[in-house]
Amino acid sequence: MKHFLSLADATSAELDRIFDLAFELRAQRERGEPNTPLLRHKTLEMIFEKPSLRTRVSFEQAMYELGGDAIKLGHEEIGIGKRESAADIARVLGGMVQGIMARVFEHDKLVELAEHSAVPVVNALSDYSHPVQALADAMTMMDAFGRDLTGRTLAFVGDGNNVARSLAVMCGKIGMNFIIAAPPGYDLDQPFIESVMTSMPRMNFETTHDAHEAVHHADAIYTDTWVSMGQEQEKQQRIETFSPYQVNAALLGAAPDHAIVLHCLPAYRNLEITDEVIDGPRSRVFQQAHNRLHSQKGLLALLMGEKG
Amino acid sequence: MKHFLSLADATSAELDRIFDLAFELRAQRERGEPNTPLLRHKTLEMIFEKPSLRTRVSFEQAMYELGGDAIKLGHEEIGIGKRESAADIARVLGGMVQGIMARVFEHDKLVELAEHSAVPVVNALSDYSHPVQALADAMTMMDAFGRDLTGRTLAFVGDGNNVARSLAVMCGKIGMNFIIAAPPGYDLDQPFIESVMTSMPRMNFETTHDAHEAVHHADAIYTDTWVSMGQEQEKQQRIETFSPYQVNAALLGAAPDHAIVLHCLPAYRNLEITDEVIDGPRSRVFQQAHNRLHSQKGLLALLMGEKG
Amino acid sequence: MKHFLSLADATSAELDRIFDLAFELRAQRERGEPNTPLLRHKTLEMIFEKPSLRTRVSFEQAMYELGGDAIKLGHEEIGIGKRESAADIARVLGGMVQGIMARVFEHDKLVELAEHSAVPVVNALSDYSHPVQALADAMTMMDAFGRDLTGRTLAFVGDGNNVARSLAVMCGKIGMNFIIAAPPGYDLDQPFIESVMTSMPRMNFETTHDAHEAVHHADAIYTDTWVSMGQEQEKQQRIETFSPYQVNAALLGAAPDHAIVLHCLPAYRNLEITDEVIDGPRSRVFQQAHNRLHSQKGLLALLMGEKG
Repeated sequence: MKHFLSLADATSAELDRIFDLAFELRAQRERGEPNTPLLRHKTLEMIFEKPSLRTRVSFEQAMYELGGDAIKLGHEEIGIGKRESAADIARVLGGMVQGIMARVFEHDKLVELAEHSAVPVVNALSDYSHPVQALADAMTMMDAFGRDLTGRTLAFVGDGNNVARSLAVMCGKIGMNFIIAAPPGYDLDQPFIESVMTSMPRMNFETTHDAHEAVHHADAIYTDTWVSMGQEQEKQQRIETFSPYQVNAALLGAAPDHAIVLHCLPAYRNLEITDEVIDGPRSRVFQQAHNRLHSQKGLLALLMGEKG
Repeated sequence: MKHFLSLADATSAELDRIFDLAFELRAQRERGEPNTPLLRHKTLEMIFEKPSLRTRVSFEQAMYELGGDAIKLGHEEIGIGKRESAADIARVLGGMVQGIMARVFEHDKLVELAEHSAVPVVNALSDYSHPVQALADAMTMMDAFGRDLTGRTLAFVGDGNNVARSLAVMCGKIGMNFIIAAPPGYDLDQPFIESVMTSMPRMNFETTHDAHEAVHHADAIYTDTWVSMGQEQEKQQRIETFSPYQVNAALLGAAPDHAIVLHCLPAYRNLEITDEVIDGPRSRVFQQAHNRLHSQKGLLALLMGEKG
Repeated sequence: MKHFLSLADATSAELDRIFDLAFELRAQRERGEPNTPLLRHKTLEMIFEKPSLRTRVSFEQAMYELGGDAIKLGHEEIGIGKRESAADIARVLGGMVQGIMARVFEHDKLVELAEHSAVPVVNALSDYSHPVQALADAMTMMDAFGRDLTGRTLAFVGDGNNVARSLAVMCGKIGMNFIIAAPPGYDLDQPFIESVMTSMPRMNFETTHDAHEAVHHADAIYTDTWVSMGQEQEKQQRIETFSPYQVNAALLGAAPDHAIVLHCLPAYRNLEITDEVIDGPRSRVFQQAHNRLHSQKGLLALLMGEKG
């Protein structure tokens, strides 16, 4: 693995190594010890075409806790493909820093960055996928159910978006079943489903339009905002369409008692998830956010340290 | 003291400890030695709803000189209570960083952050108060008059604003007299005065509308801008109202010869303070700005280091 | 040298020292060793009135790789001369950080900062000059032709702008011939030419309106964008005026076979330079960008370390 643009870039052994490192570094931190400085003298360039809280803080802090540094460029400072092509940006940065992380509107920009970069490029959210989120999500399910998640079921309730795509692939990679309940018209796209079924033919992948059916055998129930950045105009219509897909006490009642609840945040409380659920005993939402820090440390240590 | 939202959060012993650390760390720096790395492996999250020069640089540099790191989020990256509640932001950050500093429009946001944060929260300016400024101000008066300021008098000439509030409380805490000369209608608010008098009944607190009377026994004369961010529309009217309250040579003539001049900057030269005064021998304004760095080191070392 | 506002601030011995350090630190890095931490416990304040990619990353990374820190203030955070005068900003920062780097619209702001700053001030681009770019450019020519560039010729083809000015002075300083081919009306200004000829009377300085003539004896051919930030409105007219000055295969054909091609980037491909040339074997453009990092390390180490 040279770059991490999608989960498909990582072999199973590499994913295992990322989780090994993540759990190890978290344990070290919880014992009150400083982390082993695996990324000392290394700098991560952080490019944000969209603003961010969790991604920004978790990546930057991951670098600091591993002994490295980070340089953040915001959308007001860099226009990938506007002032300068992704290729030229990658050529320049590749001679200055030791890794590049980018949150972009168009996934193709990431592909172009990676193609021309001498240093690893990490996808920190694109319109197509969000693989670093899926790392934290898997880690949080491992916290609940143990390191081996084979045969467990993740039910994604909501919009068939970039987050859902990466979760589906993660499930396939680690042997979990994936079921998505989306409103008609908001399913995961057919080309994506076909590519998943082609690359992971034994994967158990289901789609439904019935949220209650989706969670019936779920070990984890996942939701995400109904209205992403850029969709504010369709807000009212989306709220109506998605309201049967709210993760609330009634929906939890349809799931096994041990099922946990996940959300990648920010949450629009009492839209896609009720206060009662997100603040309730089955929510792992804030631990999941904290696992962004730990799992990305595993990723960066592998990409920029061990392989670097 | 878990958080530092106002001076009332610190006991007298804690304030003493902050100043001890501040003077010690400044002396170390002046000898050309690096500071003892009291905040090694610690990161301060810096949230700015309003832009800032002094606060930004002094806090970030305080972290660096104490061996730690800092992550800055600007208003374009984080909307407290817009994209996400202060409570959820605090829950997320509390698992990633070791301290949070916030400059906010509404003081209540700070209170909500602190309530839900597992790590210390520092008020770096709100609409209500500016306690870290008061730390630097007290340190600067200690530079002039010695560590014990009991019985000394601070005259605040200008707007009864957030800076004035924190100064008044600081005076009460360290045994100084506080007198404010504001134009009618711009006095400190009555509920604030009552709360001060209730919590510190022996404090000598005076208000007047006469600037010359205020400085008559002053050891330090303090002023601040007449037109804060957000008040630009009333600018002309405010300039007229406040012009009798300019800190100029004539006003200094009415004060004791040993009285020093303070200003929290940025200064609108020849409005609230004349060039002659701010650049004159009695001005301690730039030393006061530098003391932001030193006194905040004391604060951060206590909150994130010794207590952490 | 206390400040580095223009190449004239550095003696020949100081320039030599900067290049010595730059080559040494680059070699260390290329051997996979961390740099000697020459700027440990030092922080560079970075002020950007205009956004930047190369300047931002190269300066910040230079500080990190030399063991120091950096604090970036963008145009949304600081208004030099708007909220606060350059003099007051310098007085405040000089007591907090160990160096200041500023990218400004008006060169006079830099002069005012330097006048009132207790710590070194570095010009990171002004409307008048771009001396740190010229350091990287000279280093790149040294890579091609050896450390002694005496008698070599640099042909600048394009707009007689800030970049051209600094290159001309650099050539004079290190004994190179400088020839500029600009469209009529876009030549370097006469007062500048006179000041160069007065301060460096033996310098070989030529101007022409013929690009082919300019490159005839060139060892290096340099171009820059035809449309700088703020000139977008004249874009179409400028493109027409400058089109005979494109650096393309035909122009390279008029130059000696060993001539290399330089560009300070970002490049507007197929306007001032063709894809064929910038991606071709004679282009040193990306090595030149990387040399920003190395040469600025030399500069910062001299200003903030050895002299500090």
